[in-house]
Amino acid sequence: MLAPTDVDASGDRFTATYLVDPALGAVGDVARWMAGEMTVEFPLDLIDPDDGIGTHVVGRVEAVEPVGGRHRVVISVADEVVSGSMTQLLSVVWGNVSLGRGVDLVDLTPPAGWTAPVRHNGPRGLAAFRALADAPTRPLLMSAIKPLGLPVDRLAAMAHELAAGGLDVVKEDQSLADQPWAPFDERIGPIAQAIRDANDRNGTRAVYAPSLNGPVADLPRRAAAARDAGAGAVMVQPGISGYPAIEAAATAGLPVIAHPGGFGGLSDRVAPALVHGLLPRMAGADCSVFIVPGGRFPIEEADALATVDACLRPSGDLPAIMAAAGGGVSVERVPQLRGTYGDDICLLIGGDLHRDGDPRRRASLLREAAER
Amino acid sequence: MLAPTDVDASGDRFTATYLVDPALGAVGDVARWMAGEMTVEFPLDLIDPDDGIGTHVVGRVEAVEPVGGRHRVVISVADEVVSGSMTQLLSVVWGNVSLGRGVDLVDLTPPAGWTAPVRHNGPRGLAAFRALADAPTRPLLMSAIKPLGLPVDRLAAMAHELAAGGLDVVKEDQSLADQPWAPFDERIGPIAQAIRDANDRNGTRAVYAPSLNGPVADLPRRAAAARDAGAGAVMVQPGISGYPAIEAAATAGLPVIAHPGGFGGLSDRVAPALVHGLLPRMAGADCSVFIVPGGRFPIEEADALATVDACLRPSGDLPAIMAAAGGGVSVERVPQLRGTYGDDICLLIGGDLHRDGDPRRRASLLREAAER
Repeated sequence: MLAPTDVDASGDRFTATYLVDPALGAVGDVARWMAGEMTVEFPLDLIDPDDGIGTHVVGRVEAVEPVGGRHRVVISVADEVVSGSMTQLLSVVWGNVSLGRGVDLVDLTPPAGWTAPVRHNGPRGLAAFRALADAPTRPLLMSAIKPLGLPVDRLAAMAHELAAGGLDVVKEDQSLADQPWAPFDERIGPIAQAIRDANDRNGTRAVYAPSLNGPVADLPRRAAAARDAGAGAVMVQPGISGYPAIEAAATAGLPVIAHPGGFGGLSDRVAPALVHGLLPRMAGADCSVFIVPGGRFPIEEADALATVDACLRPSGDLPAIMAAAGGGVSVERVPQLRGTYGDDICLLIGGDLHRDGDPRRRASLLREAAER
Repeated sequence: MLAPTDVDASGDRFTATYLVDPALGAVGDVARWMAGEMTVEFPLDLIDPDDGIGTHVVGRVEAVEPVGGRHRVVISVADEVVSGSMTQLLSVVWGNVSLGRGVDLVDLTPPAGWTAPVRHNGPRGLAAFRALADAPTRPLLMSAIKPLGLPVDRLAAMAHELAAGGLDVVKEDQSLADQPWAPFDERIGPIAQAIRDANDRNGTRAVYAPSLNGPVADLPRRAAAARDAGAGAVMVQPGISGYPAIEAAATAGLPVIAHPGGFGGLSDRVAPALVHGLLPRMAGADCSVFIVPGGRFPIEEADALATVDACLRPSGDLPAIMAAAGGGVSVERVPQLRGTYGDDICLLIGGDLHRDGDPRRRASLLREAAER
């Protein structure tokens, strides 16, 4: 037995909810194993349950009940165990537990007083983008400059056209990293200038969002360089660089867009509404791109709706963030998408804007459909 | 059609191999869709295949063949598309493609001349740990100080005992982040000192490896603080902080240990030998902890053996790295584990060392079993 300890804690606790396969064994034992694995990863029979560590540090099984052939298990953990750290929160709720097959994470309540790890000055989340676009109620609009391989002048010209067409956010495709055809430091200035020119000539307010794919230690520098070049937002892929990279990308003070690339394996085991909604929001993202049914990727409509809800629903001090629907959006689908998701949404259109060789015209049609 | 482009590339290409579910449709169409999604994410019918982008940037389907009810699809991509960046490599091979259910990544060849993103001075990988331990041939030995909740003096005392017992690496449990019970900056000095004292008194050479769970932008600072306090290695969880965090943790020049927490969803869709072996190795890890059959987590023996091979097998300029077997290692299992995995392995024992209340004695028994 571990010698007695004198650990104290505030009593504030958060909860994580799992669905557990009955084949893993007696659900009470599995739940206690999970609670230990999440927190102390130490033989529980060596810890006195009435001791400081047993009382305050080991996770507590709050509920076990059958749900549709599986068991719903709710485990609470002292807020001090994560101490406001996104990294540690993820490590607790999806670290070792993830390695046990048949255990899926389906819900999560943020610790008390959880605020995004990085505080911007001014508006954040959906409000930040609405303010930038001067669009208080309509759906916001986003597209990407691409394909990878275009030189800087062609990317800049495309950005100009998309901005002139009235899009709110002109982001870089996530494929744009630091390739020789358009290196990051060489392209951000000309592209930012092209968008500024389009805005000046057309009275538009397009925001430029470069892709920050690169070493995570370089994210603060790249985000600052983007800001100094005139970008209004930045984009990272937390499915590649980890949710904690959102915080690093936010240090320059620009809103952060989270792209869903790389989340395929995770979203098979963790509810899509958490993967694409609550977790990026808790990590400090201001916008999260998710995929909609009817496009290039498979997703259930219920999961898409729950993702939008997880971005918008009031939750402690977390700002509502912009859920950006992508992966299958076209100009023609706008009325249907507005009907399904409401107007507190961003519509992200990629290849469809290039279909007839005049992306500016298609962007204008998109803007009209959003203002209708 | 996209206006003609004048893109050039070296001709050096790397390959990614997938297994694709036939239910997704005609496999040739699916493979071409994947090749586009990985690189340009642009309607392929708008790109002239003989054009610069069509020739050099769009992924190329190299092979399609049936394998056990699925299709094996090999896709090659120009090295310039990733340009030496781990982030971009992952984005290409497992970004948007991951979002298509029924597509699993099973193999990968590193781009030509791929070296770990961060170069240390002196030995790296397995060789670095063998040099630190002065153990040229025997299995290396690792354990963790835990549980979370212990104050600094108790953690330091435990580290002293484990070092005195003859372990090569005394790491912190991944649960140790920056909690109030033992904050990072307050604990690393006393724990390093306790291990130094044990080494001085007993002629041992234990290396201290603190857990760097925290904001990724803070990883270089924490790694440097660990080094300055006397740590000999550091540990991160790429399943939580992303593979690119390994590079950030390596900037202080210490060997990096990758812990497998959070990889559960990923390893359902990406071969475990890539998840726990080749990818951390390519990202710059010097040691990767993987789980072995017969313990607390489910894994196939073939996957465990393939993981060790992916850590050790000669591959370009990549150093062989230390595969650390965990999740179910006991003193009694040492002969069996050596028989299965050979002696180029690290044995990571957690709770089992604390079973009889004298971790130093159990550590000594472990060391004896490794030297036999």
